[in-house]
Amino acid sequence: MQVIKTSIEGLIELRPQTFKDSRGSFLETYNQPVFNALGLPAQFVQDNQSFSTKGVLRGLHFQKEPFAQGKLVRVITGKVMDIAVDLREDSPTFGKYEAFILDSEISNMAYIPEGFAHGFVALEDSIFSYKCTNVYNKACESGIIWNDPDLNIDWGISNPIVSDKDQQLASFRDLYPQSVT
Amino acid sequence: MQVIKTSIEGLIELRPQTFKDSRGSFLETYNQPVFNALGLPAQFVQDNQSFSTKGVLRGLHFQKEPFAQGKLVRVITGKVMDIAVDLREDSPTFGKYEAFILDSEISNMAYIPEGFAHGFVALEDSIFSYKCTNVYNKACESGIIWNDPDLNIDWGISNPIVSDKDQQLASFRDLYPQSVT
Ligand SMILES: Cc1cn([C@H]2C[C@H](O)[C@@H](COP(=O)(O)OP(=O)(O)O[C@H]3O[C@@H](C)[C@H](O)[C@@H](O)[C@H]3O)O2)c(=O)[nH]c1=O
Ligand SMILES: Cc1cn([C@H]2C[C@H](O)[C@@H](COP(=O)(O)OP(=O)(O)O[C@H]3O[C@@H](C)[C@H](O)[C@@H](O)[C@H]3O)O2)c(=O)[nH]c1=O
Repeated sequence: MQVIKTSIEGLIELRPQTFKDSRGSFLETYNQPVFNALGLPAQFVQDNQSFSTKGVLRGLHFQKEPFAQGKLVRVITGKVMDIAVDLREDSPTFGKYEAFILDSEISNMAYIPEGFAHGFVALEDSIFSYKCTNVYNKACESGIIWNDPDLNIDWGISNPIVSDKDQQLASFRDLYPQSVT
Repeated sequence: MQVIKTSIEGLIELRPQTFKDSRGSFLETYNQPVFNALGLPAQFVQDNQSFSTKGVLRGLHFQKEPFAQGKLVRVITGKVMDIAVDLREDSPTFGKYEAFILDSEISNMAYIPEGFAHGFVALEDSIFSYKCTNVYNKACESGIIWNDPDLNIDWGISNPIVSDKDQQLASFRDLYPQSVT
């Protein structure tokens, strides 16, 4: 398992090893002792899977305390651009984001710690899969509008397919008025 | 989550709920509190994913104590026939098997307890995924030949693609000489 740090503390990319043979392929997508040895969170309590057609954008989402979620994200088929925004108010990179191309051809993953907003846009029809350190809690759901002017994320797409719910999300400025000058 | 019992104690089929909308679909494939509430094993320490072309048969495999594995199995794309053989020597169904069609169209899953041998044949090109209650341990790997005459499994295929390793697996009779008359 290759571990690649990003410019944001705690946000990392992971590249597991794939074994190929005449039958097809095999990979471990999660292994608790290996995650423990790497110093990564190793306790996940929920696994989710979504399918998105090309051009769908989901996000930016997070759950509020006490249901904040760390997420281990990857794609199983297809390819997405994945975005993680640092919302940890004591972080030197608060308000900054990192983009990952998650590609089923290389089976790379990202670990997004608690305290981040998360979203992705499907660059192809894609099956997206993620493990969460805390369970879904509808009452704690929150988010930021995908095209927020302060976050200024380069999604590489101008008219994504976005759910009605996601079109109503708040701005970064509304959620963190003290942080925007 | 719909829970369907089989004729073998502890071996069950699960059907999670899928939410569809204009973006695609969403489902929870694992939720620890839900599994606890259903009385199912809820602690998994390894997740695996394999791709098999149509006609590939993997199995029949199990790990010996102290690394016996319970497995929560499903397919993400494609369709397989999944086989679980009861090898619990104190079980009234010892030596019996159950077949499941695991189909990505309905996202059904099976929970196979510790003490079973497991295998599947890919009815289409298929991505297979499973969660394990114990980690991989090469030294504890064991298995039974897929076309064992005593188990007499109806795989519905006569010339599957089988790994060299799987072609050398022992017979049921060799592993349990006292059980075959
Ligand atoms: C997130 C979630 C949704 N659902 C249900 C609620 C809805 O009926 C349906 C779709 O929910 P939505 O919130 O619209 O799905 P979504 O795919 O837009 O939401 C996801 O987006 C990702 C970017 C985030 O990382 C995730 O944490 C999650 O927020 O699924 C669950 O049952 N469990 C869950 O954990
Ligand atoms: C099972 C496993 C294999 N490997 C490696 C070893 C090999 O290089 C490669 C392929 O291993 P194989 O044993 O040939 O894969 P396989 O897909 O034939 O084995 C699987 O078959 C299923 C029917 C069983 O339910 C599983 O428990 C497992 O035995 O992957 C791991 O790194 N971790 C694992 O957990």
